[in-house]
Amino acid sequence: MVKQERAARTRRALIRAGAEVFAREGFVSASLSAISRRAGVSSGALHFHFESKKALAEAVEGEALKEVRRIAREAAARDGRALAGLVDATHGLVNRIAEDVVVRAGFELSGAPGRAGGPTLRREWQQWVEQMVRRSDQEGWLAPGVSADDAAAAIVAATTGFEVLGAEDSTWLSQKKVAGFWELLLPRLTERHAQMSPGWSAHAAAAAHPAEHGTAPDSRP
Amino acid sequence: MVKQERAARTRRALIRAGAEVFAREGFVSASLSAISRRAGVSSGALHFHFESKKALAEAVEGEALKEVRRIAREAAARDGRALAGLVDATHGLVNRIAEDVVVRAGFELSGAPGRAGGPTLRREWQQWVEQMVRRSDQEGWLAPGVSADDAAAAIVAATTGFEVLGAEDSTWLSQKKVAGFWELLLPRLTERHAQMSPGWSAHAAAAAHPAEHGTAPDSRP
Repeated sequence: MVKQERAARTRRALIRAGAEVFAREGFVSASLSAISRRAGVSSGALHFHFESKKALAEAVEGEALKEVRRIAREAAARDGRALAGLVDATHGLVNRIAEDVVVRAGFELSGAPGRAGGPTLRREWQQWVEQMVRRSDQEGWLAPGVSADDAAAAIVAATTGFEVLGAEDSTWLSQKKVAGFWELLLPRLTERHAQMSPGWSAHAAAAAHPAEHGTAPDSRP
Repeated sequence: MVKQERAARTRRALIRAGAEVFAREGFVSASLSAISRRAGVSSGALHFHFESKKALAEAVEGEALKEVRRIAREAAARDGRALAGLVDATHGLVNRIAEDVVVRAGFELSGAPGRAGGPTLRREWQQWVEQMVRRSDQEGWLAPGVSADDAAAAIVAATTGFEVLGAEDSTWLSQKKVAGFWELLLPRLTERHAQMSPGWSAHAAAAAHPAEHGTAPDSRP
């Protein structure tokens, strides 16, 4: 049991170290020896957990995907308020890209040239946004004359832009930038924008930081 | 003179072949031998023109930058109509990314990890958009309550998203996608949107294809 725990901890350390090196140097340039050194383990231990750099990259993407799905699931659970959920999810996504190197590297890997497997993470985010915009439309939130396809495309393109531009300049990954985007888009997207905030709802923001918020004295029941 | 012409032609062929290989495989994986083979020249000829892969990549970015500046200059020349110029420039940019591998590779190189020199092309596009939005504001085109900063950020993020997503799926690089974005944004951005088209003006579209359009019988004076 102790041995299993140690193995799981090593695996997590390797995924994190891999994400750091992939995010900084790209998949092709990243060296496994730099990754094992950074994780503080032997290269034998790295090979015990991951048979190749590709396998490690897939593990990074897999962890990032789990996190994106968690954000999406929590946002989608808001009955009758898919549009508010979508606003929250874009804030949550951009926040995780800024603060969690595994999520950031997962997105960068999903668009890197020369990697087989395709851009799963970006594609999944796109499909989810399209689905939430359709739900918003069915729930009667979209203004007359607004195309759900155009709205979904604008949201996907802008969030992808925040992610990519944020790799060079972290101001693109701020809550302020995301809120500014919704400030611009919401009054066009919906006539009920007075009922909506372009910012991140307090509930969703707390959920995105379970470790920081869950144990704070003022959030105890 | 003939010799100079041949040298210039070889240089152009190398830039184009380099762009094709960089766009497909990324900077790090691209091999100089694949590039010289593709250009139909010896590796000695490649080294005569470019001392390193980095030098060739800089030449690709330099050519792409010229093209972006041309699009920007033509769009900026429209007196009192900076906002219409901006719409045209986004159409022109996305069209060139779709159709000209040198422009496409230039953008991809400008954001590639592990390349020194920084993202010149994306940064220049960003600064130009910011400037055009400010001009639109000074010309009285922005609706009250619309933040010029938010508008510029949304336009830069969305066009970057089109560029990046278009590398995997070319439907992101269509006129329809760009027009859909403006269809959504313009009515919020300006109260004078009835005077504006979210599509690409015929004049600007023709200017973007001098070879195709300039020689057509119906465009002769």
